[in-house]
Amino acid sequence: MTGFEPRDPHWEERVRASFARQAFLKHLGVEIAHLAPGEVDLALPFRPELTQQHGYFHAGTTATIADTAAGYAALSLYPGGTGVLTTEFKVNLLNPAEGEQLVARGRVIKPGRTLTVCRADVFGLEDGSERHVATATMSMICLEGLDD
Amino acid sequence: MTGFEPRDPHWEERVRASFARQAFLKHLGVEIAHLAPGEVDLALPFRPELTQQHGYFHAGTTATIADTAAGYAALSLYPGGTGVLTTEFKVNLLNPAEGEQLVARGRVIKPGRTLTVCRADVFGLEDGSERHVATATMSMICLEGLDD
Amino acid sequence: MTGFEPRDPHWEERVRASFARQAFLKHLGVEIAHLAPGEVDLALPFRPELTQQHGYFHAGTTATIADTAAGYAALSLYPGGTGVLTTEFKVNLLNPAEGEQLVARGRVIKPGRTLTVCRADVFGLEDGSERHVATATMSMICLEGLDD
Amino acid sequence: MTGFEPRDPHWEERVRASFARQAFLKHLGVEIAHLAPGEVDLALPFRPELTQQHGYFHAGTTATIADTAAGYAALSLYPGGTGVLTTEFKVNLLNPAEGEQLVARGRVIKPGRTLTVCRADVFGLEDGSERHVATATMSMICLEGLDD
Repeated sequence: MTGFEPRDPHWEERVRASFARQAFLKHLGVEIAHLAPGEVDLALPFRPELTQQHGYFHAGTTATIADTAAGYAALSLYPGGTGVLTTEFKVNLLNPAEGEQLVARGRVIKPGRTLTVCRADVFGLEDGSERHVATATMSMICLEGLDD
Repeated sequence: MTGFEPRDPHWEERVRASFARQAFLKHLGVEIAHLAPGEVDLALPFRPELTQQHGYFHAGTTATIADTAAGYAALSLYPGGTGVLTTEFKVNLLNPAEGEQLVARGRVIKPGRTLTVCRADVFGLEDGSERHVATATMSMICLEGLDD
Repeated sequence: MTGFEPRDPHWEERVRASFARQAFLKHLGVEIAHLAPGEVDLALPFRPELTQQHGYFHAGTTATIADTAAGYAALSLYPGGTGVLTTEFKVNLLNPAEGEQLVARGRVIKPGRTLTVCRADVFGLEDGSERHVATATMSMICLEGLDD
Repeated sequence: MTGFEPRDPHWEERVRASFARQAFLKHLGVEIAHLAPGEVDLALPFRPELTQQHGYFHAGTTATIADTAAGYAALSLYPGGTGVLTTEFKVNLLNPAEGEQLVARGRVIKPGRTLTVCRADVFGLEDGSERHVATATMSMICLEGLDD
């Protein structure tokens, strides 16, 4: 129960189908961890090819899952026959991105007919504890005729 | 001639060596296209595994090369024995990220002892013409003892 | 009880004294509404001279109280003899800024020796109900020798 | 000659009329310094009531003129019968905001039917020289039926 009412009864299969068409997410190994109206969590298990020069997850992977989790959180509330595009996002990096996996929690802050504003927080998970790696805010635009 | 004076005479080999240690950039296929004090351009040739659901480069790839180009533009001006970390970045997406390659042009706006503020613009190149895909601003922190 | 431990026992009088020296806040009519370690709320009662062309609070007033609330939330956790400066902030405007007063709630997300990352949410209050006007994230730097 | 073609032949009087209705800008003392299609410069002469605790212009004044200059740069390209609202902006503060006056230069980066992305740079002017105080990027939405 998230307080949001989806307008498309098929929102979940629409999100899953769109996610499955993203080749880049498969290339990284991103997985869906949680889906609810206005809420999407994505997980990214550690792999050496995801790292930057000090061995942490690259900030580009943090940005990718934050943006994607927020985008699907927005799409989950869109009417059928529309698509989602990010128009801007900002990420503050709080701690080194390390752990067995990164998890991005995308949440709708303010749904809108044209623009939906979201937040995403990214955590590094290790041995059952989690560390706050990044916090982000972003705007998603709803496009008619761009079927996602 | 960029108007910036590097403080480390070995700045270029330091940038190239750090770049070579980033496994994630190799996983995507990022290449150095231009290096000067305070200026770094990175290129990312198109590959199907870099795309989102509509066949464009994923916004995560745009963010990755924007952030990395700006980070190395900052590092090129740092004294020896220091490292660079992004503390925040914001990206505005202007046009669909399509083309034979994406190019990110990272430029130092304001160098500083602790924080260096940079800009990065990303373009899609196709048949000799270019399209403005994204504009970004970011802060880079200079860390002593974190050798890059 | 906010979970943050102030390092300066005189943090509250330091915040109040610094606030009182800000001529711009007096020019607008900003008031302190809540102070705790890592938490500062500021209120701005409606006045016609604070409005933009449609009669709402100007976005500049929203930004001013968001930035200031977050800055003092950061300062409340700084050691004595240091000062606070904003290095960057981003605001997403969610709803028209209307009401009897605006309230900005600044919260520390991640304290740090050099940089402290904060969030601020701004609400319009009217007849006991509140509306989410803006959400913001920002970075605050701790400067030694700049006594606040 | 800015390369932008206004769609409303009365764009300049529309911008000036909307500017004149903003009580907050009068309260601060903001003046129009330059108008062209897609380009607006605003000036803010120094006054003690605009300062923060160290005697510089408050960051809220910097944000106000950056946002407003960019908003009118966007509006200058809008068709008649529409209005402009900022949806988000991000400011990086580069140097202390000091000088006889602040000048914000708002420029359209990418005009659009719904969203227009702008940049604004703020400078402190003193004795004929200028210092880069802040750089900002922002999104402006074009609203039909909200006549500016």
